[in-house]
Amino acid sequence: MIEKINGGVTAAKGFLANGIHCGIRKNPGKKDVALIYSEVPAKAAAVYTTNLVKGAPLTVTKKHLENGLAQAVICNSGNANTCNADGIEVAEKMSALTAEVLNIKAEDIVVASTGVIGQPLDITPIANGLEELAKGLSFDGHSAAEAIMTTDTKAKEVAVQFEVDGKNCTLGGIAKGSGMIHPNMATMLVFLTTDCAISAEMLQKALSADIKNTFNMTSVDGDTSTNDMVVVLANGKAENTEITAEGPAFDTFMKALNSVTVDLCRRIAADGEGATKLLECKVTGAPSLEIAKVTAKSIICSSLVKAAMFGADANWGRILCAIGYSGAAVDVTKVEVHFSSKAGDILVCENGAGVAFSEELAKKILLEEEIDILVDLHDGDACSTAWGCDLTYDYVKINGDYRT
Amino acid sequence: MIEKINGGVTAAKGFLANGIHCGIRKNPGKKDVALIYSEVPAKAAAVYTTNLVKGAPLTVTKKHLENGLAQAVICNSGNANTCNADGIEVAEKMSALTAEVLNIKAEDIVVASTGVIGQPLDITPIANGLEELAKGLSFDGHSAAEAIMTTDTKAKEVAVQFEVDGKNCTLGGIAKGSGMIHPNMATMLVFLTTDCAISAEMLQKALSADIKNTFNMTSVDGDTSTNDMVVVLANGKAENTEITAEGPAFDTFMKALNSVTVDLCRRIAADGEGATKLLECKVTGAPSLEIAKVTAKSIICSSLVKAAMFGADANWGRILCAIGYSGAAVDVTKVEVHFSSKAGDILVCENGAGVAFSEELAKKILLEEEIDILVDLHDGDACSTAWGCDLTYDYVKINGDYRT
Repeated sequence: MIEKINGGVTAAKGFLANGIHCGIRKNPGKKDVALIYSEVPAKAAAVYTTNLVKGAPLTVTKKHLENGLAQAVICNSGNANTCNADGIEVAEKMSALTAEVLNIKAEDIVVASTGVIGQPLDITPIANGLEELAKGLSFDGHSAAEAIMTTDTKAKEVAVQFEVDGKNCTLGGIAKGSGMIHPNMATMLVFLTTDCAISAEMLQKALSADIKNTFNMTSVDGDTSTNDMVVVLANGKAENTEITAEGPAFDTFMKALNSVTVDLCRRIAADGEGATKLLECKVTGAPSLEIAKVTAKSIICSSLVKAAMFGADANWGRILCAIGYSGAAVDVTKVEVHFSSKAGDILVCENGAGVAFSEELAKKILLEEEIDILVDLHDGDACSTAWGCDLTYDYVKINGDYRT
Repeated sequence: MIEKINGGVTAAKGFLANGIHCGIRKNPGKKDVALIYSEVPAKAAAVYTTNLVKGAPLTVTKKHLENGLAQAVICNSGNANTCNADGIEVAEKMSALTAEVLNIKAEDIVVASTGVIGQPLDITPIANGLEELAKGLSFDGHSAAEAIMTTDTKAKEVAVQFEVDGKNCTLGGIAKGSGMIHPNMATMLVFLTTDCAISAEMLQKALSADIKNTFNMTSVDGDTSTNDMVVVLANGKAENTEITAEGPAFDTFMKALNSVTVDLCRRIAADGEGATKLLECKVTGAPSLEIAKVTAKSIICSSLVKAAMFGADANWGRILCAIGYSGAAVDVTKVEVHFSSKAGDILVCENGAGVAFSEELAKKILLEEEIDILVDLHDGDACSTAWGCDLTYDYVKINGDYRT
């Protein structure tokens, strides 16, 4: 059984965290550097953006995680440290300084940055803030969740408890999302921690499998970030027998991981830049998983669908349109579409053509904050879910002048 | 020599056109049906949307153009006649009624519709308006250009003169664009007419080659319409020797066609829904044409790049980001980026990293209405251009409640 509990990145035993304002951001009220620390070295796994333009921190983190071990995460917001000539050097310096203050090895540091691309990252405020950051490490991880936010309006923390091998295990995490969110490997920054004992190999296997149905199915604006990274640390403090192969224990771990990642995906989508609504698109009856995924993503990424949802306009033709150009081999004459929310459920399209429906009920359904777009392709058994948000004036406003 | 002249779809000899309000739209001030007529049967070629969901008129037009001949175009706005159970029947009826009033064969009619998807198209207003529409046919095509507009704010007409075989030829056309514009075969509706004599086969060859570098490189919002269609009619009234093979005459024809289509693409992009700026992205120095095209399209389609241009924010990192996720194998460490407009030119990125630049000058350049984004990949000789527009509050407003 997987049980949701309060907390985030410090919910699991032996993890501490902190977040402070060190001065990368001008606004002293906005935290800009986070530290996560495990009392003992942890098994580590990660997935990275597929963007060819990669933030310098990713290159350094990748090298550090080659041995499958890590003990701390240092992450700043306000600057992506990407497309800078001295980027690698700065990321390595960030690791070295963090290792020094924690008295651990630099190779056991995960380093991450998020913010504006192409502006040199001055290491000085981080260097000056590290002692305060480390001293303030505590079992309350909320400040770390706040410190990794960019245009996010809400800190994103989730945790669950589950049982493996008779031992009580916990897995939790924090995420920052908001903009430059697209389903192509991970979604911005997600740091997960667990006290479950699991080998680095199985941890990587679990993470790589899970993101295909979670972070890779989440889109805010179709732009794949240069700094996307999902990292999971497992420190074994729950003292279960280490999971080293597939089996019931691994299945339970996968379920726990998935319940955390789906929750974070929904929070990232709901808090997309300028978003007023969380959109969940469920495609069922697909001839293959690939077709289900491609179709769901195409719908959730359509600017026209997103704008219609903002306006609570049941313009289902745009959903058919997005299915049609998705590239998936769909028999569009079989497609059925419903809109659903806590205000009700309404059929708007059957056999690829419109049906008469109450515009009044449709409006009521679409005025809710969580909308389900349900598409049945009536052509098989495969299904998939994608998460996104509406396109609003505020998205344009936020991104019209992000740097200043 | 290709010379721009006034006029549009009736600039070439022997073409007449008209546009009126027949009642598909509620607003009597908005024309909603256009008719284009050639005094003699013309050779015809067309390209259609690649969307699997296709408007019923496309299916009917495709059948009618199988013999490479057409004599008239009937097109309504306000309703796409797509995803309707009786769509084909209605499109056939539209053709038949038009043929009757013009006293020509129904197979020589090109039928097109644009507007809302999934609402039954009532043929009655068109049937009632056809006589007035045909009676008003004239050598002034402006009303036809107006009648095919949906959310367009400007009618789009272009014409050129050129010489083939010592004869003076004319090629002109009209377009409607605005929303649901994406580089994937054609771009909404474009009707071209010429008096140049050219075989149907060579006409198709010219059109199919041209759109790859023009309409397929134009994006407003990443949504590929269900009703995209570019049709060209050539009635031979210029009395040149018919172009039946490649050679200098065909090359001249291609150039004339290209100067009209590029102009229409720029007008479509500049008048994109809610747009305040035309963006032209030129990628040079690419290792292959494919890489140049994919890169240029990825930049022009990025919501974040588009929003930054709206805000006149020289956030070049988003351009690097869009290159990185384009899928093209680009060496990002060689990339150079300039912004350019009639206010000046500024280098913002070299060797994939930022350079110091005057924010003041950058702002001045980006406050203009036509912005060039110049990207040199420094990795070969291939180049490509893509057209798009900025992402604005008004795009969201227009699409938030399109149907009502």
